[in-house]
Amino acid sequence: MKLHNFNSGPSILPVSVLEEAANAIHNFNNTGLSILEIGHRTAAFGEVMDEARSSVKQLMQLSNEYEVLFLHGGATTQFMQVPMNLLDATDTAAYCINGIWGKKAAKEATFFGNVFTAADTTDCDHTCIRMPAQLPVDTKYLHITTNNTVEGTQWHQIPEVDVPLVADMSSDIFSRPMDYNRFACIYAGAQKNMGAAGVNLVVLRKDIVGKRKKGIPAIMDYQQHIAAGSLMNTPPVFSVYVSMLTLRWIIREGGLPEMERRNRAKTTLLYDTLNNHPLFTIRVSPESRSWMNAVFFLANPALEAPFLELCKEQGMIGVKGYRTVGGIRVSMYNALELSSVQAFCDLIHYFTEKNG
Amino acid sequence: MKLHNFNSGPSILPVSVLEEAANAIHNFNNTGLSILEIGHRTAAFGEVMDEARSSVKQLMQLSNEYEVLFLHGGATTQFMQVPMNLLDATDTAAYCINGIWGKKAAKEATFFGNVFTAADTTDCDHTCIRMPAQLPVDTKYLHITTNNTVEGTQWHQIPEVDVPLVADMSSDIFSRPMDYNRFACIYAGAQKNMGAAGVNLVVLRKDIVGKRKKGIPAIMDYQQHIAAGSLMNTPPVFSVYVSMLTLRWIIREGGLPEMERRNRAKTTLLYDTLNNHPLFTIRVSPESRSWMNAVFFLANPALEAPFLELCKEQGMIGVKGYRTVGGIRVSMYNALELSSVQAFCDLIHYFTEKNG
Repeated sequence: MKLHNFNSGPSILPVSVLEEAANAIHNFNNTGLSILEIGHRTAAFGEVMDEARSSVKQLMQLSNEYEVLFLHGGATTQFMQVPMNLLDATDTAAYCINGIWGKKAAKEATFFGNVFTAADTTDCDHTCIRMPAQLPVDTKYLHITTNNTVEGTQWHQIPEVDVPLVADMSSDIFSRPMDYNRFACIYAGAQKNMGAAGVNLVVLRKDIVGKRKKGIPAIMDYQQHIAAGSLMNTPPVFSVYVSMLTLRWIIREGGLPEMERRNRAKTTLLYDTLNNHPLFTIRVSPESRSWMNAVFFLANPALEAPFLELCKEQGMIGVKGYRTVGGIRVSMYNALELSSVQAFCDLIHYFTEKNG
Repeated sequence: MKLHNFNSGPSILPVSVLEEAANAIHNFNNTGLSILEIGHRTAAFGEVMDEARSSVKQLMQLSNEYEVLFLHGGATTQFMQVPMNLLDATDTAAYCINGIWGKKAAKEATFFGNVFTAADTTDCDHTCIRMPAQLPVDTKYLHITTNNTVEGTQWHQIPEVDVPLVADMSSDIFSRPMDYNRFACIYAGAQKNMGAAGVNLVVLRKDIVGKRKKGIPAIMDYQQHIAAGSLMNTPPVFSVYVSMLTLRWIIREGGLPEMERRNRAKTTLLYDTLNNHPLFTIRVSPESRSWMNAVFFLANPALEAPFLELCKEQGMIGVKGYRTVGGIRVSMYNALELSSVQAFCDLIHYFTEKNG
């Protein structure tokens, strides 16, 4: 049976990336050694790190004002590392809380400074994105989560603010062209559109680092990581390698314009199909719907279990909604083929015929 | 040409582990999906995490007083995380500084409390291990680095102290049986004896956590990681899997007694050979020599470059000494075969014949 991988993360990767990653475990770059057995300061790995970093710059069309880091951990690590680097204890940062990850990010920031809630969509169960309120004077940065994996919302417009903009792009990074130079800091765990779990991408506009007065541990310090070229300590070698392969794949396939074209086709097909099948309801407001994670429900909750059972029988992986939200979640990251979404839509139709 | 992998880390892994890791990238556990594409909350990955954690308990023969975590990052992350968890700002921790890693660990601790230097072998270029001095009253813990990868020293006796003992075992973990229940906290980056870079093992005696008064970010908090079973956020899935495979390999091969037997054979062969070839000198005092990393020099420095060139020609990988120490370093982790050490010793003999 053909499997369709709708996992929310870790999630589907391009077949060619998996092939190359497996080959490198046997013999990396004709070194005769495995990628798992080579020193991170060798020329061979240096090329991997360099290509990964330059591919990010190329895809995002970043100006020379930016530095690109690959660091240990996931986005949750950055929830701490961002405020630790950018705030002194009396400083204020603003956070838009549009879902559980933004809320967690804001909470971690409270350990390092004051947090101003610029928007909070808890009142509507995070089914929409809301623009930030007026920010306090001297706000050090505004933090947004560009795509909410759990709630199925996404920012389709970059907010206009006159403070540095920090974005957690873990679940929609490299899914579309965007004016990335509007951001002062972008971070993302790799395990959705960018590779395997265990590594973080951090993009920094140089002017925002090094302004803090207090000292912080070396392993957390962006400035020291920049100086060390992401090689302060042994990096997560294999995860960096898989990210490099995935970025290379994106470029080869046509870059972000092509990713957008594909993602738009998948997302249009799925949401249109849902709209045409009243057995299914979408709570997220139309203008805030995520291209990456479609979250929806059976109008009759009693039909949820049989629908999930049918999905399982038909090889549809990872479509159960997040535990705090329930319902169905279909994740459609870059590597997911349109044919998988078509297969899922066929199932929606079949299920409707049987239960409508 | 047969390669001999003496890399100091990331370093040699068992061939069978590499085979299984590569297979899992194609098809993990007959799921039809890659290990890189599966959710970390699936039953299939849950079994991996459980086996990794229980293998650690089994190999170390830990009592029920211990918890085992697999966390993001390397030992350098623990340099921060240990004092962040165990110290309040007015507390004191003691550090034995026997090399560059212990020095870095002590420095990170200064951000969280007071640091008492219990031993410092800087005066002898860290060529020996020295027991800790009398500790201040109320010292929260004593930190040691059981093996110094860079300097080639190793603790062959656990210090007798009446405060909790914390050990960075990154470069000699699982190399020998030891009374692991004497330690309150053991941590290790995986990329030497335990797998691939990108994951940390942390072993904690339960009574030492949760005593701190101040709050800390969730991602750093051992208590929250224990409560979440190392699944607070997406773990470094693949690196945990490779650690699990490596631990399974150690158990299958005969556990720590067998690792000790092999390591003792390799280390005896190498140091005896060096002692018998006066072209080579060892600066580390005999009782402190590391089984994992032998650091030595050419008595005539002019012969170092030709010797390294010969090593390269003969497929001896990673034998150049660390940049701050110089000389030669031969790392002999668990997965290295005795035949590789024999091949290196043959080279020592050959080089001596030609240059003696």
